[in-house]
Amino acid sequence: MPDVLAYACDDRTTQFHRTTITLPEPGPHDIYIEVRYAGICHSDIHTAREEWGPARYPLTPGHEIAGVVARVGEAVTRYAVGDRVGVGCMVNSCRKCEYCTDGHEQFCTGTPGGLPGTLWTYGPDAQGNPTAGGYAQGFTVSEDFACRIPDSIPFETAAPLLCAGITTYSPLKRYGAGPGTRVAVVGMGGLGHMAVQISAAMGATTAVISHGRSKEADARRFGATEFYATSEDGTLEALAGSFDLIVCTVGADDLDYTALVRTLRPFGTFVDVGLPEHPSQIHMAALCNGNKAMAGSQIGGIAQTQEMLDFCAEHGLHPQVEIIGGQDITSTYDKVVGSQVRYRYVIDTSTF
Amino acid sequence: MPDVLAYACDDRTTQFHRTTITLPEPGPHDIYIEVRYAGICHSDIHTAREEWGPARYPLTPGHEIAGVVARVGEAVTRYAVGDRVGVGCMVNSCRKCEYCTDGHEQFCTGTPGGLPGTLWTYGPDAQGNPTAGGYAQGFTVSEDFACRIPDSIPFETAAPLLCAGITTYSPLKRYGAGPGTRVAVVGMGGLGHMAVQISAAMGATTAVISHGRSKEADARRFGATEFYATSEDGTLEALAGSFDLIVCTVGADDLDYTALVRTLRPFGTFVDVGLPEHPSQIHMAALCNGNKAMAGSQIGGIAQTQEMLDFCAEHGLHPQVEIIGGQDITSTYDKVVGSQVRYRYVIDTSTF
Repeated sequence: MPDVLAYACDDRTTQFHRTTITLPEPGPHDIYIEVRYAGICHSDIHTAREEWGPARYPLTPGHEIAGVVARVGEAVTRYAVGDRVGVGCMVNSCRKCEYCTDGHEQFCTGTPGGLPGTLWTYGPDAQGNPTAGGYAQGFTVSEDFACRIPDSIPFETAAPLLCAGITTYSPLKRYGAGPGTRVAVVGMGGLGHMAVQISAAMGATTAVISHGRSKEADARRFGATEFYATSEDGTLEALAGSFDLIVCTVGADDLDYTALVRTLRPFGTFVDVGLPEHPSQIHMAALCNGNKAMAGSQIGGIAQTQEMLDFCAEHGLHPQVEIIGGQDITSTYDKVVGSQVRYRYVIDTSTF
Repeated sequence: MPDVLAYACDDRTTQFHRTTITLPEPGPHDIYIEVRYAGICHSDIHTAREEWGPARYPLTPGHEIAGVVARVGEAVTRYAVGDRVGVGCMVNSCRKCEYCTDGHEQFCTGTPGGLPGTLWTYGPDAQGNPTAGGYAQGFTVSEDFACRIPDSIPFETAAPLLCAGITTYSPLKRYGAGPGTRVAVVGMGGLGHMAVQISAAMGATTAVISHGRSKEADARRFGATEFYATSEDGTLEALAGSFDLIVCTVGADDLDYTALVRTLRPFGTFVDVGLPEHPSQIHMAALCNGNKAMAGSQIGGIAQTQEMLDFCAEHGLHPQVEIIGGQDITSTYDKVVGSQVRYRYVIDTSTF
């Protein structure tokens, strides 16, 4: 394969610079994608800054990848050159364990003699060697881990769907967001602004719970019909027993989970996708009183990711993105951490 | 109604003494029960010692009540004098809200002009006046809040089923304990020893997770086929990804919930019924990694309580009880708190 231009950082200070990376030779079941856009997910930052453990540098992150198939392996059947495709957080799995066969490749437990579990985008490959992610002009992946981007979704807005979209679609689907249900989305950043759109499109009465009111107009534009600011006294207390489902996209360690759970109706579920760094506090009595649950959710399987893309196309949902060049990645990381993003930064790889 | 003998305490030191209480006149839909046995639930102790908030003394606790119908109101249709009945944690609800009509009277939200919500056994009545519980020779209740005790279940073992039985049956049923599932019960006290029996009778492979091994033989006798002691190094780590469902009956504040959640398989649920006094810590990443949930569960509705009694009769399940007299209640409270109970103390009201 040709070498491709990419952006990488060399340590946890995340000073990104242009570089050239050599991609692995595509196998018979692989496709090679000319990457057009790659989203910047907060988890890229956690990884690159070693907030989730040691990283291997030089590191090229990126798991919100959208582009065009430029080459296909001889055994590829699902895609042809010119097809519009996306890749998210996973690049392979064993295909044989119960989770893979049930369409939950993100929980692959591995197969003896086969892959040991899920292979993550820009994580180690099956041999333990580092791999590059989507901040690059090219990407190679098994055809089974690519999804088709519907024609009505531009590449730049397709990219964030591959992580932010599926991460919020999956719990909304699993826990029954739809007509007659009342859903609250906590936090309206990259994930939250997709959760609001998807929840509303599913037919749920959708509320946003944010710290202040600066995003209220945007929330209503995305489909929310209720907006609550926790900076105002008594907000959560007044909402006791209100929601069937809460999708929490905030990872702040000081969130009052007990108060949020109390805003659920009996049998309601609070789902976290915000992944706070430290352990959270919850009063079990708030869960017992009403048979409530606090759940976690991690992306979604490949089939569900395709379903989500098709759903977004059908309902005309799009992330609100701000396009940046490769030279902007370093400063953009600080903007994401400082919550200045409205609502997802996407890298245009033609700027490399 | 005649006055009846009862035991009451006068303050949070819970020194119980014999007394006489006057029961309210039974209404047309009420039944009067001659109480034979009343179980001592840990929540009686929390309440009587004001660990859950202020109590109103003199207090006669008891919400595990088994006895015989001695008198029926003129409009009673379900029970006749001589019937064997039990009463648990609730004595009335509005009957009209969505939770009541769905059979979840424990989450009654009340009806304008009607009852304001669930009325709890030995809690305030609809007018806010204190009421007495089952540590008494008589008890009056709406016929709709009594359950029929199957003939094969003696009164003394029926009593604990009305709280410990339904509290564990309900989450095991809701979360699908059955053939092909692997269930862990954390803690084997009054609730835990019923959870083990019910889980095994439902057909689940049942494990007990306890601090030490002192209850291992009992656990196996109750139907557990696996026993794990957390006092042994690495126990929970070795169990990672093992269980479909965990029912946690322990209320200790130092429980490692994150480690317990990690013993769940993907899509598994941890259900708390142990109600620790203070907020608990949980690492959200442990929930997200595998789409797991941490839920709470509070008793069960009246219809499900009857279902549980019938299930226990069908499968020959019985609490293991130790019968005490009224004069033993004071010292027994300390034994329960000191975890000396094997596995439920039941008061014989004929000793009053």
